[in-house]
Amino acid sequence: MAEYGHLKRVPMVTVKRLSRYLRALEKFQEKGFETVSSEELAGELNVKPSQLRKDLAYFGEFGTRGMGYSIPKLAEELRRILGLHRQWAIAIIGVGNLGTALLRYKGLNEKGFRIAALLDDDPEKVGSSRSGVHIFHIDDLPNLVKEKNIQIAILTVPAPAARAVADLAVKSGIKAILNFAPVSIKAPPDIAVMHVDISSELKILSHHLAELDLSGETVGYPIVEDNGE
Amino acid sequence: MAEYGHLKRVPMVTVKRLSRYLRALEKFQEKGFETVSSEELAGELNVKPSQLRKDLAYFGEFGTRGMGYSIPKLAEELRRILGLHRQWAIAIIGVGNLGTALLRYKGLNEKGFRIAALLDDDPEKVGSSRSGVHIFHIDDLPNLVKEKNIQIAILTVPAPAARAVADLAVKSGIKAILNFAPVSIKAPPDIAVMHVDISSELKILSHHLAELDLSGETVGYPIVEDNGE
Repeated sequence: MAEYGHLKRVPMVTVKRLSRYLRALEKFQEKGFETVSSEELAGELNVKPSQLRKDLAYFGEFGTRGMGYSIPKLAEELRRILGLHRQWAIAIIGVGNLGTALLRYKGLNEKGFRIAALLDDDPEKVGSSRSGVHIFHIDDLPNLVKEKNIQIAILTVPAPAARAVADLAVKSGIKAILNFAPVSIKAPPDIAVMHVDISSELKILSHHLAELDLSGETVGYPIVEDNGE
Repeated sequence: MAEYGHLKRVPMVTVKRLSRYLRALEKFQEKGFETVSSEELAGELNVKPSQLRKDLAYFGEFGTRGMGYSIPKLAEELRRILGLHRQWAIAIIGVGNLGTALLRYKGLNEKGFRIAALLDDDPEKVGSSRSGVHIFHIDDLPNLVKEKNIQIAILTVPAPAARAVADLAVKSGIKAILNFAPVSIKAPPDIAVMHVDISSELKILSHHLAELDLSGETVGYPIVEDNGE
């Protein structure tokens, strides 16, 4: 039986930090370093060394007491943990402005990921291609997932369509969904769903602005240096 | 002196849930309900009633024991806490595919927000407009912030430019930044910075896929119903 508990066992913030540790390690490596202490590595992310050790402890023992971490070995381990030792095929569903932006977004074309297909239901788009990637009809999703061994679906469809498209993706065998549609999506527990909810991020900012306003800070004018903290 | 501690005092996950509570309340209101119990409201978000009460307790006392919450009163309070009782002006900096997608994104044109200006440094774009919003030169940012009383900057510039643009935004008087560039940004403590790091969300998904792989689950094929949890 598959073990589905992993994603929930390791806090999401830890997994997020792992990719930042990896980025920092790659920088150290570029500079020619071979080893790094937990203080140095944690310092790059502005976290405490104890936090770094706690994050890594979810996955086993790394580093040698008094010697620090071997940079190539830890980087390799982090790549394996993050699933970046192999390549995952992505389908972007919804070829509007956002879908097109993501297609060209650098972070989506990193080592480890490959955009294998675009899908839409607009007859004017289906059959053409963008940035060299073919646009298929949404009804082709089940076949494409099998033929191209697609694991990740990125949803950039309008809100009213998102749930039905997510259901189709799950039925087609997709195991991970990155949802940009402003609705929450339900999926079985073995499917990882990440929601990029831009509207909710904006509301965190407006909450901050409202608090500044309440506190008597004039919002929208240059910071006076001696405002302090 | 301004009180800057608020954003850090209230956990970000709490603020995120507040906007989801508000959405649920608005649904109840559309259906003609006047009051709602903490069980019913929490149930809409799949959280425990104790979590809802804890989230609200950061901001004071709401509801009457045994009576539940008055929907219009609680919704009004949440709008005030989230800063949605007034309108915030947004500048989108970087008018590429992503900037254009966000300009047309429904969540950005909700009540409470208004896209007041677009900015870019491409002479072919500056002076034209998209969806009725004028594209200014990035050098105009300080003047625009004052003239149009802009509070929020959305950064959709390429990674190498992001830090300099963020610095300019802060110097211009921007108090809140939503950063889509794949680099982290440093800002004074009174500036709220939210980072939408699509690449890091993707790595959480690939981590999940790698764990499924390790657990012997064949990735990329339909779920067998009896897989259990």
